Amino acid sequence: MSLDSSSLDSSFRLSSRMAGLRSSAIRDLLTLTARPDVISLAGGLPATELVPRERITHAAQRALADPRSVQYGETSGWAPLRETIAARESEKVGRRIAPAEVVVTHGSQQALSLLAQVLLDPGDTVVVEEPGYTGALQVFRTAQAVLVPVALDADGMDVEALERSLREGLRPKVVHTVSNFHNPRGVVLSAERRVHLAALADRYGFWIIEDDPYGELWFDAPAPAPVAAHSDRVLRLSSGSKTLAPALRIGWLHGDRRVCEAVELLKQGADLCGSSLTQQIATELLDDSAWLAAHLTTVRGAYAARAGALVDALETAFGERISHATVHGGMFCWIEFADGVDTTALLQTAVEHDVAYVPGGAFGVTSTHPHAARLCFATYDGAVLAEGVDRLRRAYDAFSGTAAPRAN
Amino acid sequence: MSLDSSSLDSSFRLSSRMAGLRSSAIRDLLTLTARPDVISLAGGLPATELVPRERITHAAQRALADPRSVQYGETSGWAPLRETIAARESEKVGRRIAPAEVVVTHGSQQALSLLAQVLLDPGDTVVVEEPGYTGALQVFRTAQAVLVPVALDADGMDVEALERSLREGLRPKVVHTVSNFHNPRGVVLSAERRVHLAALADRYGFWIIEDDPYGELWFDAPAPAPVAAHSDRVLRLSSGSKTLAPALRIGWLHGDRRVCEAVELLKQGADLCGSSLTQQIATELLDDSAWLAAHLTTVRGAYAARAGALVDALETAFGERISHATVHGGMFCWIEFADGVDTTALLQTAVEHDVAYVPGGAFGVTSTHPHAARLCFATYDGAVLAEGVDRLRRAYDAFSGTAAPRAN
Repeated sequence: MSLDSSSLDSSFRLSSRMAGLRSSAIRDLLTLTARPDVISLAGGLPATELVPRERITHAAQRALADPRSVQYGETSGWAPLRETIAARESEKVGRRIAPAEVVVTHGSQQALSLLAQVLLDPGDTVVVEEPGYTGALQVFRTAQAVLVPVALDADGMDVEALERSLREGLRPKVVHTVSNFHNPRGVVLSAERRVHLAALADRYGFWIIEDDPYGELWFDAPAPAPVAAHSDRVLRLSSGSKTLAPALRIGWLHGDRRVCEAVELLKQGADLCGSSLTQQIATELLDDSAWLAAHLTTVRGAYAARAGALVDALETAFGERISHATVHGGMFCWIEFADGVDTTALLQTAVEHDVAYVPGGAFGVTSTHPHAARLCFATYDGAVLAEGVDRLRRAYDAFSGTAAPRAN
Repeated sequence: MSLDSSSLDSSFRLSSRMAGLRSSAIRDLLTLTARPDVISLAGGLPATELVPRERITHAAQRALADPRSVQYGETSGWAPLRETIAARESEKVGRRIAPAEVVVTHGSQQALSLLAQVLLDPGDTVVVEEPGYTGALQVFRTAQAVLVPVALDADGMDVEALERSLREGLRPKVVHTVSNFHNPRGVVLSAERRVHLAALADRYGFWIIEDDPYGELWFDAPAPAPVAAHSDRVLRLSSGSKTLAPALRIGWLHGDRRVCEAVELLKQGADLCGSSLTQQIATELLDDSAWLAAHLTTVRGAYAARAGALVDALETAFGERISHATVHGGMFCWIEFADGVDTTALLQTAVEHDVAYVPGGAFGVTSTHPHAARLCFATYDGAVLAEGVDRLRRAYDAFSGTAAPRAN
């Protein structure tokens, strides 16, 4: 969707920030592929059947027994939830986080959006990952920041390359990183690079936004300690959307208290406060440590199996025609076609074959990633994923005009 | 709360929009008066005991039987809710509103905040009411707009005065009005002025934001048809917060389709989407017309009784010392002290006497309303309101250094 501002007469015009702003390609695609017969590997939807609906129903009933659950709440969040988050994050970063250093937001996307407004003036430089999370790119573009991409490899953001740019004079206000199980690349920022990135922030005086919605979704071993463990210039975001339920709309920010105060101040104008009801539900779920541990074990196991099924199906169907990153957690697998097929062009054919993915270009800053695609393995079970890959192979054959024998 | 930016070294600095931005005085006051022994007439909280918690519990159970209730939803809102809102608003404005002309937001405050970003560039002129809704003033100030106040009288915004300014060359991008049961003044924009204001928007080419969270809370008769009935330059906001429950965080915008698309686009970056769960709950409640009609009758009756109790108590305690607007609905009563007492100065003494209100100055644009105060009658029953007024009178006596005999 692009805005048809040209059809507005001058008195109907919109603000200048709307000029050229475009809808997330992913979200438009989600609309296009809402037909139930499409296997959409494009979305970023957690597995609906793994969302603990019974536990949420129980928690909702308990919450609604408390009259405060239906009333307005504090802008910074339900106090017991801030305490719970502060305790959990303290454990992760290895130092005490006070509840005053936590703001509960309407999903971590709201934290990102408010942080951009709190930290950035038009023209400020923001370092982003290439490819990068589209929701972050959109927020920084809306803030009229100058985006400077830094490449990713199997160990996450190329911090050495960032350091070279800093030495050459780059002075970002913010560096944004999805440190764990990157969206879209699936990679994890290595422990060494976390320490290095934190040291660069201290030396060159920029903020790090450590955007971590996927950190709990590890398969074999937890990710290294957060970047926030190594510097107080880190504003760390996380979320209950991938572990509890997207519809609770519970995300959070922790970090510098003055930044938290500024975020809270803007949140007053943005939406007054979050939902006391869903915040109370989230509190009960996060506080029930035995249940939560078992639930996360279930989700991790299911996602590991799904990632394995997707990768097996891809290898069977495409063999050497594609390469893919090894998946250690999260929700996404990034593939690249070795034979130069253009994934944006292929998409139309794929949708005709009732399968969808996100072309790499959607995540591009200055690169277009023309041969890459992001596939989500979280939403469907292994059988459906295999069928999706089968359709993708048929689409690929039709698109390439070949009826080549299958790789295996 | 003001931000202590001066203590941030230059690399810790915030964006320029944070400079001078201050927290809503009302919300800080709510924090100050959270002690249970304070009768706070300062807040804008609907009566907790009138929020239909049982009905919401039932609706939550039903919603949670549907797996879609826990998943991400469309940015513009749960489709059946948009249809319900479109149907209800169609009836109000007397023409067919399509669901595509509705965006569900995280409270109507989010609609206001996104509209400001969609419509306003820094330096644009926004006409606001004097005194005005603090949440709107904050949003427009954050957007770095130039605020031009227009006075209110017993018939709402002085549209004749606005027309004079327009004739003299004023060219606002937006005119904001709380048309029904004004916050803080309690007044209703007259039917004639609605027609007049709409005609001015058409003639001079500005947007009207008709901010209407209180319209359903009428005591004796419904308010006149919305301003949106008279022009397609009206962006009309309303909310379930005052009629269903604040914690559902359900607000909405309807109006020009291109503006709705732009709001949806910014909402993607702001928070991706609302809560499918609370949107499904709200849909069930709004669709249950028999229940809703009975519920609204109950709330209207209770609020009318409370408004009456507050006004009676004020007249008994203060007699000619105060004047007050006649209250026909909503949640607020605006009073002015005839003897020149400064309500900002009085507040400290009032809080010492365990009663709070909002001084008029909090709502001021260029005026300070030094002798005025906003009292909310919605939160407490008549007996508590009377006790609150009693405390206010004792505080007033202590502040004035008098032990004058009571007016009656």
